[in-house]
Amino acid sequence: MDSRNNAKKNAELRSLAPGDRFCGYYLLKSIQPATTAAGKPYLNLRLADLDGELPGKFWDYAGPLTAADAGQAVWASGRVDTFQNAPQLTLDNLRLTDEKDEFDLGRIVPVAPYDAQEMLHYVEQTLQSLSDADYRAVCLAVLERRREQFALLPGAKAMHHAFLHGLLMHTAGMLRQADALALLYPDVIDRSLLLAGVFLHDVGKLAEFSTTELGLVGDYSKEGQLLGHLFLGAEEAGSAARALGVPAEKTMLLQHLILSHHGKPEFGAVVYPKCAEAELLAEIDMIDSRMEMYRAAFADTPPGQFSRQRVYGLNNCMIYRPAQEE
Amino acid sequence: MDSRNNAKKNAELRSLAPGDRFCGYYLLKSIQPATTAAGKPYLNLRLADLDGELPGKFWDYAGPLTAADAGQAVWASGRVDTFQNAPQLTLDNLRLTDEKDEFDLGRIVPVAPYDAQEMLHYVEQTLQSLSDADYRAVCLAVLERRREQFALLPGAKAMHHAFLHGLLMHTAGMLRQADALALLYPDVIDRSLLLAGVFLHDVGKLAEFSTTELGLVGDYSKEGQLLGHLFLGAEEAGSAARALGVPAEKTMLLQHLILSHHGKPEFGAVVYPKCAEAELLAEIDMIDSRMEMYRAAFADTPPGQFSRQRVYGLNNCMIYRPAQEE
Amino acid sequence: MDSRNNAKKNAELRSLAPGDRFCGYYLLKSIQPATTAAGKPYLNLRLADLDGELPGKFWDYAGPLTAADAGQAVWASGRVDTFQNAPQLTLDNLRLTDEKDEFDLGRIVPVAPYDAQEMLHYVEQTLQSLSDADYRAVCLAVLERRREQFALLPGAKAMHHAFLHGLLMHTAGMLRQADALALLYPDVIDRSLLLAGVFLHDVGKLAEFSTTELGLVGDYSKEGQLLGHLFLGAEEAGSAARALGVPAEKTMLLQHLILSHHGKPEFGAVVYPKCAEAELLAEIDMIDSRMEMYRAAFADTPPGQFSRQRVYGLNNCMIYRPAQEE
Amino acid sequence: MDSRNNAKKNAELRSLAPGDRFCGYYLLKSIQPATTAAGKPYLNLRLADLDGELPGKFWDYAGPLTAADAGQAVWASGRVDTFQNAPQLTLDNLRLTDEKDEFDLGRIVPVAPYDAQEMLHYVEQTLQSLSDADYRAVCLAVLERRREQFALLPGAKAMHHAFLHGLLMHTAGMLRQADALALLYPDVIDRSLLLAGVFLHDVGKLAEFSTTELGLVGDYSKEGQLLGHLFLGAEEAGSAARALGVPAEKTMLLQHLILSHHGKPEFGAVVYPKCAEAELLAEIDMIDSRMEMYRAAFADTPPGQFSRQRVYGLNNCMIYRPAQEE
Amino acid sequence: MDSRNNAKKNAELRSLAPGDRFCGYYLLKSIQPATTAAGKPYLNLRLADLDGELPGKFWDYAGPLTAADAGQAVWASGRVDTFQNAPQLTLDNLRLTDEKDEFDLGRIVPVAPYDAQEMLHYVEQTLQSLSDADYRAVCLAVLERRREQFALLPGAKAMHHAFLHGLLMHTAGMLRQADALALLYPDVIDRSLLLAGVFLHDVGKLAEFSTTELGLVGDYSKEGQLLGHLFLGAEEAGSAARALGVPAEKTMLLQHLILSHHGKPEFGAVVYPKCAEAELLAEIDMIDSRMEMYRAAFADTPPGQFSRQRVYGLNNCMIYRPAQEE
Amino acid sequence: MDSRNNAKKNAELRSLAPGDRFCGYYLLKSIQPATTAAGKPYLNLRLADLDGELPGKFWDYAGPLTAADAGQAVWASGRVDTFQNAPQLTLDNLRLTDEKDEFDLGRIVPVAPYDAQEMLHYVEQTLQSLSDADYRAVCLAVLERRREQFALLPGAKAMHHAFLHGLLMHTAGMLRQADALALLYPDVIDRSLLLAGVFLHDVGKLAEFSTTELGLVGDYSKEGQLLGHLFLGAEEAGSAARALGVPAEKTMLLQHLILSHHGKPEFGAVVYPKCAEAELLAEIDMIDSRMEMYRAAFADTPPGQFSRQRVYGLNNCMIYRPAQEE
Repeated sequence: MDSRNNAKKNAELRSLAPGDRFCGYYLLKSIQPATTAAGKPYLNLRLADLDGELPGKFWDYAGPLTAADAGQAVWASGRVDTFQNAPQLTLDNLRLTDEKDEFDLGRIVPVAPYDAQEMLHYVEQTLQSLSDADYRAVCLAVLERRREQFALLPGAKAMHHAFLHGLLMHTAGMLRQADALALLYPDVIDRSLLLAGVFLHDVGKLAEFSTTELGLVGDYSKEGQLLGHLFLGAEEAGSAARALGVPAEKTMLLQHLILSHHGKPEFGAVVYPKCAEAELLAEIDMIDSRMEMYRAAFADTPPGQFSRQRVYGLNNCMIYRPAQEE
Repeated sequence: MDSRNNAKKNAELRSLAPGDRFCGYYLLKSIQPATTAAGKPYLNLRLADLDGELPGKFWDYAGPLTAADAGQAVWASGRVDTFQNAPQLTLDNLRLTDEKDEFDLGRIVPVAPYDAQEMLHYVEQTLQSLSDADYRAVCLAVLERRREQFALLPGAKAMHHAFLHGLLMHTAGMLRQADALALLYPDVIDRSLLLAGVFLHDVGKLAEFSTTELGLVGDYSKEGQLLGHLFLGAEEAGSAARALGVPAEKTMLLQHLILSHHGKPEFGAVVYPKCAEAELLAEIDMIDSRMEMYRAAFADTPPGQFSRQRVYGLNNCMIYRPAQEE
Repeated sequence: MDSRNNAKKNAELRSLAPGDRFCGYYLLKSIQPATTAAGKPYLNLRLADLDGELPGKFWDYAGPLTAADAGQAVWASGRVDTFQNAPQLTLDNLRLTDEKDEFDLGRIVPVAPYDAQEMLHYVEQTLQSLSDADYRAVCLAVLERRREQFALLPGAKAMHHAFLHGLLMHTAGMLRQADALALLYPDVIDRSLLLAGVFLHDVGKLAEFSTTELGLVGDYSKEGQLLGHLFLGAEEAGSAARALGVPAEKTMLLQHLILSHHGKPEFGAVVYPKCAEAELLAEIDMIDSRMEMYRAAFADTPPGQFSRQRVYGLNNCMIYRPAQEE
Repeated sequence: MDSRNNAKKNAELRSLAPGDRFCGYYLLKSIQPATTAAGKPYLNLRLADLDGELPGKFWDYAGPLTAADAGQAVWASGRVDTFQNAPQLTLDNLRLTDEKDEFDLGRIVPVAPYDAQEMLHYVEQTLQSLSDADYRAVCLAVLERRREQFALLPGAKAMHHAFLHGLLMHTAGMLRQADALALLYPDVIDRSLLLAGVFLHDVGKLAEFSTTELGLVGDYSKEGQLLGHLFLGAEEAGSAARALGVPAEKTMLLQHLILSHHGKPEFGAVVYPKCAEAELLAEIDMIDSRMEMYRAAFADTPPGQFSRQRVYGLNNCMIYRPAQEE
Repeated sequence: MDSRNNAKKNAELRSLAPGDRFCGYYLLKSIQPATTAAGKPYLNLRLADLDGELPGKFWDYAGPLTAADAGQAVWASGRVDTFQNAPQLTLDNLRLTDEKDEFDLGRIVPVAPYDAQEMLHYVEQTLQSLSDADYRAVCLAVLERRREQFALLPGAKAMHHAFLHGLLMHTAGMLRQADALALLYPDVIDRSLLLAGVFLHDVGKLAEFSTTELGLVGDYSKEGQLLGHLFLGAEEAGSAARALGVPAEKTMLLQHLILSHHGKPEFGAVVYPKCAEAELLAEIDMIDSRMEMYRAAFADTPPGQFSRQRVYGLNNCMIYRPAQEE
Repeated sequence: MDSRNNAKKNAELRSLAPGDRFCGYYLLKSIQPATTAAGKPYLNLRLADLDGELPGKFWDYAGPLTAADAGQAVWASGRVDTFQNAPQLTLDNLRLTDEKDEFDLGRIVPVAPYDAQEMLHYVEQTLQSLSDADYRAVCLAVLERRREQFALLPGAKAMHHAFLHGLLMHTAGMLRQADALALLYPDVIDRSLLLAGVFLHDVGKLAEFSTTELGLVGDYSKEGQLLGHLFLGAEEAGSAARALGVPAEKTMLLQHLILSHHGKPEFGAVVYPKCAEAELLAEIDMIDSRMEMYRAAFADTPPGQFSRQRVYGLNNCMIYRPAQEE
């Protein structure tokens, strides 16, 4: 009998109970090939979806998946058993997904709440609109080189925008702000410089993160930890600008915006913001990060109540969601 | 012969030289009635305009002006003499101005670079547009009660917007930002609450400042120093809201926005911002203040150069004005 | 047979063992009505006394107590059973207490170590002794309005005086200090203002706390979290003073003492203390809080030893209790 | 003719005008013997009183006073001349004072506003009252050894109690407080230990200061700068206690009180206060210092006004003196 | 049959499995004599070695070891049983070790990785080489008095050099540095003073720690907590110097070096370093501590990787061990 | 008559008196060509040497020197006149120096107290000794490109090593330390990496400073202010390493050492030191800077005394120079 008969399909892992059969798409959180006392190969593994994970065994499994496949999306099926009073999966089928598999990635890993293609299109259109040809060229060159990563990666390991396309969403949100605010302070703000700074401010994160196969931040890379994303981004922007023959003054300004966007040395800025665009960039970054933390906290905070947890990035406070006006 | 013949009219004080005759409108910076050894009354005074000031004497002056008139605009005429190697005015005419005098106030005291009537109109129109009737009512009530002061006073004693109509300009600038940003974060921001918070956030300053006749901040008032403008504003907003029967939740939110708008206790906030509108209000305030500091610093910083002085409110840095792109 | 025969009466919960019968007064820590698989109503609950708590079941219980009764004192009886290797109560009787029940509240919730009536009498007598009629009137008006709460509530959620009548005990302790110190610094201290400030400094806590039925602080109220007890107290004192026609200078001083009593902005003060009474009030508050932390820590620190735990409010140190002199 | 005929006697130096003759007691602020071009000896000197000082010359002066006599009280007489548009004294008489001279020291150097003998008597009586014989013995031994210095020296170089007998006044003020507060917290405070700590807490200052002949703090001594008065005091108290055979526990407690009396390492404490008496001592010290700063600031702050200067030790605020109640 | 037949000798505790017999030298981590329900005496105890510990019972044990023997090295033998699913030792032999026992102490308690005798010899030789007879005499006197403790004790309770002979190793490492650096800055550094300061800087720790029988730091002593090792060391050095008639200037300098070696008050320094030798001593201390933290962290950090844990004393970072160059 | 007859040659400017004739080598501090009312060209200028400067005029001067020559060494002669009661030079000769002029540069600008050629030779020899070919190659390449600047420039604008060849002296001093300390901690320190880091740590200063003709730091350059010398140095080292094909790991480590050498973000570090060589580099930098501050302070601090001024970089203390041992 096919194990998928009567099986719960794509069920949330936390809803599975001993005795259930299951099949569906999951994240292969970890995988360790092993050998029984009797010398037979098997797998220790963990499957995960957005809200939970379960340990499992695949007996008599001899490949092709190995420890290197951890972090991939898989199709799996089998049965729910019990081990030490807790549910454990016994698998009879396990393979990596490919393009022909149609499933909702957002069910197994966190994904931005907006459409990635649209956001990417918006970012590109906005960069095309920069009136300064030098700043425009640097941005488009960096986008060209980094497009895939830039569109896919999270904005952070934790704190805010820690989901697929998060960096893209953060960048798009900041560009929208920058466009609106540049209009309000035309005496002091050069729109092209500000928007270029917004686009470039976190590109160093693409080198700072070491990501899993699916694009999630596994950890910081060596470069990320030893050099920091401000330095990495400024070095990359500088090299792109020099390759395009951008004047030294403008290259320096782009690098200044990147190096100062954390606002103060104690928050990680390499230098204080010293031009109006750098100052505004740092504020815009703060606003978009914090509004996103509120959006995320609202997910489990009903109107008229405080969040159950303190939010680290919001001064470590429990935040309040105002009651809805009737 | 009339002393005003051949007199320089409304001349900048720093351009006057011994021997000149002068007449025009000035600020009466200080005035002390005195008596000569021979028992005759005279005045020691100082006249000022935007860029300088000069000491003066008015011999045989018996009134009506007294020490209480310091800080007023006056019409004055006389001659420039020399005392201890420095110029000193000898007056033959001095009177307070009234409505019939037509002169440019901005020549003798610092004034906002935008039209006060237009800004006030914009603020009022924007408050009329609040969809929440309660928040709208509180704002309009406070505006009604404080209109004159609100339209006239500076935004601060020093630091930023320290000129006539400065508070109005600061409020208008923040409302424009708030209107733009509320659109960008509709999931977390209630536009009515945010804009009401912006309008009310500094009303406590109207009680915090003790102003000169012409509206400039002479010093902080007793209440300002002992209670602070955050408390004063929140108490005033609360009493206005209660008088209008606004629900307690909304009154509390308005007060929270006012009390938290300095962002952190170490910057003077009574509480941390704990709702999204409070957080955004604090950021908007920061942006408008700092963009104004850049605007002001640009006045004597040529493109491609650093400011000559450190700017206290901008991390005490010398700020850079980017070279103009050609 | 009556279950209370042979039952241990008012036994400490931690002394109960499986097989014991029990009856007595306890705190109903939590209560959740539920239904068995067979459709019968029962209660999941937890009883508590000063030193421990136990889970329990009341089978076939259909009311009248509901989840809303958590936090009340109850009379309960039943038997001690075992569930998952731990004791669990099986109840056969459960009711709220009323005035006719005579029992020692201090056995089930923490209570101040001094007599509440005597302390309240002392506070009231002391307020009557203020020579300044305005300050006296404000204090007595606030006391009148808040008497019951003021006499019952703890002084804090944790840290110090976190027991019934704690605020009263803290206030009385501070008044005693204030009375003694006002005598020592007559050149700079107005006794009436100082003592009024002492009495009023924490009245905002009455609105800041949201308390359980028995008067213990469950959590901070919305107002407490969004406005803070300094603001709430100063607003309340101001409104009481204005209702009594107290001169503005005195109202302002009372508000200043309340708003500054945490000493520094980074400790939560709205403004720095700027008059001698405000300074002294902040010090007196510190002394009484810290002496109480020592008193509490001594409960399980023998002479000649250090406390077993670090005391957060005493610089997070393990504190030393000197050996007794013989 | 005797120069003292018609001379203004003990006149304030700032009241002297060219042409006046003067005689009286003054502070010899500085004195440098010199020689004229013609080879004749003379003195350059400065005389001072509480509110001013004047330069002077004593022509043809061959001794006995030398540069080593700076900082002494002198009797001087002579004439007021003019040098470079400013008054300069020409002396005809100058000698050190001795016991037979009767004059008000407080007119030429700052002196505590209370009677030193009475304060010293109070301190000694209070030490005699300590019930613990060990603590009493240590205090009396240190007092015996240091009596003269202790009674004479200021409490600080600046900040507070910076006048003759200042340390005595500060100690007496703190003992009065300690006596009152020990009564209020008998559960945690050992009166003998607390009062002994109060008496000893600043004895290290006697070695920390290097004082002028008249007892004023000229500067910190080498030991004061390199070891600090907390260490110096604790070492001295420890050696006194060991000489008296005081038990180690008590010696250690006395040293702990001295070493911790600044409250926190960042304020100069060697260790945090870790027993109740140490904690209370630190608070009492703070109160007495700050009340004295208020007392001093009131000298030129009228009721209902703010001090003209910021007071460094009071959070660098301008402090407010409440209006007198009528 | 002798229980030691077939027994695993000196086996690592974590390698023992139920059913094994064992014998060998271990640390007696804890020991509580008890009595069975039947009235028979037995021991509850825990044996430990460097990497693990196990609970055990010794039935029918009536002495001579008691609770006071915790922290000693013992010879033990017995069997490994199981209790509540975990291994538990059943002992049949247990005695304290004495000089005749030959075993590797480093297998059961952490020991410095260098030979203690050689290090002690180096320290003593170096002190003999001080050209200043006074500084040399003070050091040798202190070494004489404290030799055993100084050679045995750890350098700290945690953080760095927290193993037997740790203080000796730290001192030797610092002396080597000091000797090298004194050569490089001969204009400002007095080698004798610097090296004496190095030797004396932590002698206060010998009184600050309360150590176990084997020399490990159990906890801080009362004096350590209430007075701190900087004070204790400076007082001890001062008394040694005075006993030897060392000039006051030199005594003061030695005390200054000890009191300032933590660099800043917020790191525990009593005073800031104010002479070049004090400054250099503080830096040398920092370097030796931190290099040791790296050495210790390398133990489980392979080349080319980050440490698994954050290292508190290294700015709480995960530290990187560079890849080996090939 | 030739003006140089009887002229004081190379006299210190502060020793010149009205009426003197002078000739010699000086620093041309400033120079402004001007025109008299009568239309004749002349120069306003200032000459300076190490201890002073004087204003001067050169009448009827038509070139060739212009405002662009400020900051150069010149030969000048003329007469000392008086203008407004102060000395003013009247020049009759003024020309730039060239190689043929032999004079002591150290008399007119501050110069390191050691021989620059010897120090440069030492640095180069040491770099040649690096066993790691990659690190050696990067250092030598950077030295080659920057040799002249590196040998000439000061180490800072103020604070320490603020004289010609200061950076070279600082680098040589640190290399000597590094060489000694690498030997002492061979388990954790790679000598090649450490010494390469020392050499490269401040190369960013060569771009950070904008220097005068003679090599003194006039001000920070735009890049210096907007990007900082840590970023500039790391970018330069990275580009040199990549040009040489150095492995990425080593390039990253060199950049890490440069970016972290200020120790903490609040002191300007881009990242915390996270490898042992980075940690040690930061300490070595601190030591060499501070020992130099002591050396400099000793210049006007006699033995047994405190410095007259507080030294900003030494915790803003007045530092003590120990009395000489006899």
